[in-house]
Amino acid sequence: MKTLRDIGEDALIDRLVGLVPRDPNPAAGPGDDCAVIDRDPKSPTLLLLKTDALVEHIHFLPDTPPRAVGWKAAARVVSDFAAMGGRPEYFLVTLALSPETAVAWAEDLYRGIGDCLEKFGGVLAGGESSSVPPGSAAVISIAATGSVRREQVVLRSTAKPGDALLVTGRLGGSLQSKHLNFTPRLSETNWLVSEYKPTAMMDISDGLAKDLPRLAGASGCGFVIDRTALPLTPGSTPAQALGDGEDFEILCAIEPARVPGLLAAWHAVFPDLPLTKIGELVQSGAGESLTGGWDHFAGH
Amino acid sequence: MKTLRDIGEDALIDRLVGLVPRDPNPAAGPGDDCAVIDRDPKSPTLLLLKTDALVEHIHFLPDTPPRAVGWKAAARVVSDFAAMGGRPEYFLVTLALSPETAVAWAEDLYRGIGDCLEKFGGVLAGGESSSVPPGSAAVISIAATGSVRREQVVLRSTAKPGDALLVTGRLGGSLQSKHLNFTPRLSETNWLVSEYKPTAMMDISDGLAKDLPRLAGASGCGFVIDRTALPLTPGSTPAQALGDGEDFEILCAIEPARVPGLLAAWHAVFPDLPLTKIGELVQSGAGESLTGGWDHFAGH
Repeated sequence: MKTLRDIGEDALIDRLVGLVPRDPNPAAGPGDDCAVIDRDPKSPTLLLLKTDALVEHIHFLPDTPPRAVGWKAAARVVSDFAAMGGRPEYFLVTLALSPETAVAWAEDLYRGIGDCLEKFGGVLAGGESSSVPPGSAAVISIAATGSVRREQVVLRSTAKPGDALLVTGRLGGSLQSKHLNFTPRLSETNWLVSEYKPTAMMDISDGLAKDLPRLAGASGCGFVIDRTALPLTPGSTPAQALGDGEDFEILCAIEPARVPGLLAAWHAVFPDLPLTKIGELVQSGAGESLTGGWDHFAGH
Repeated sequence: MKTLRDIGEDALIDRLVGLVPRDPNPAAGPGDDCAVIDRDPKSPTLLLLKTDALVEHIHFLPDTPPRAVGWKAAARVVSDFAAMGGRPEYFLVTLALSPETAVAWAEDLYRGIGDCLEKFGGVLAGGESSSVPPGSAAVISIAATGSVRREQVVLRSTAKPGDALLVTGRLGGSLQSKHLNFTPRLSETNWLVSEYKPTAMMDISDGLAKDLPRLAGASGCGFVIDRTALPLTPGSTPAQALGDGEDFEILCAIEPARVPGLLAAWHAVFPDLPLTKIGELVQSGAGESLTGGWDHFAGH
């Protein structure tokens, strides 16, 4: 009997999405950071949809401060809207918690969600709560809508060979604390899509080693990276920068001729946040491959 | 230390929603079957948002056929869109499953979701998967968007004292099988809102004893019901009809003068599905009270 551990997360999703009706003409469907829905052709904006879940013992621990868990749950979703060039709007929060959970824990969780929505925008529109059996892990699932201006949406699948690859911030070592208190790159990506619109973009949630091949593959490209150029979190190795995951930095592709102008403008607008060229896209089949990064069902 | 069991589901939600930013002017926010968003005042439709979760051992068992679990997960959401007078559109599916789960189980779950979307409309727009630790219950969370024509939306909060209370179908005994294979009353409510628009409406998910006070309370009313009039599932008692939950029938309120016309028209259009007057709304503070129904954290 084949299990989820045997086939891994990406293969599972490939097998499942074919089993249900899908949008016959999606702006972007399963496989991008958000679903992109063209709900009204007369509207200047597209609807973005995203769902994301935190599981106790996997994404946080029983003694993690609940306010940080709430921040993380909401900020992961905000990061996905940022990765499309959009903004968050309406949030739905699903809690599956033990009846023995302290009311104060749930309240602090919600305060953390509120901290994030106050900082980045978005409002609570509804939710759902259920108990879990004794000993079961708590699950916090957040679904949200966002919006993006039609001309500013950036997918994963629209880069070309030759495009430069850049990342924001520093990679690796997120488990030391950044996975709980990271800053979604919302203002940065909103600036990018209006000033130097990337040809493709995504957030790095499972590690560059997992996510870069996803972006390149979606765009029908291969890739090469310069390991010596990777911007490292102090104390992290290049292997950690590739494999740790939960960086929540932005990976984007852009035409090579625009890179010098972008870097100069970026450093003037965001002097405290690095933007680093780490490699480029190449023809499909050329380039290198990466292994590592986080797979939920393989557990590594 | 107060726990979720101590305060119960409704009190928990009341305490949490005040801790995060909310829509300053919601068409309907937390507390109704769906959130109702007026995203574009020029659009003839309103956006509906809903999230709902199934937890193993609570909503289904390890040996429940996964295709039935998938149907139930999606049909619960469809039922909530029906309860607003709307229709389902885009679905996001979140799976939190053990790595030891058989791939075939996940595929059959998705086939069940697909069965429901094919019958009632709606398409898969995206999803998320995560592992859960060994021994933890599986959680399936579905979030979806829907739409409702602006003039057809029905809230819980807009009924008046004197309005008649009616329910579709038969109540009680859902655990025998109906909780897994129920039919969301989508075509019936879409007919209702265009032909005999109710003054308030909701679906009965936690039992009439729990849900009727919610509708009456949201409308600022009390209620009286005629226990001898309750339409019973064969083999069920009035107490089971009030308390079992997971009926997924529709409870609605309507001006009393319109009831005879509605009943005559209903029986012509839906000859196989009862529609039964069970009581009426009264002034707040008058009427009776009900206890029972399902509370997730109290576990009864």
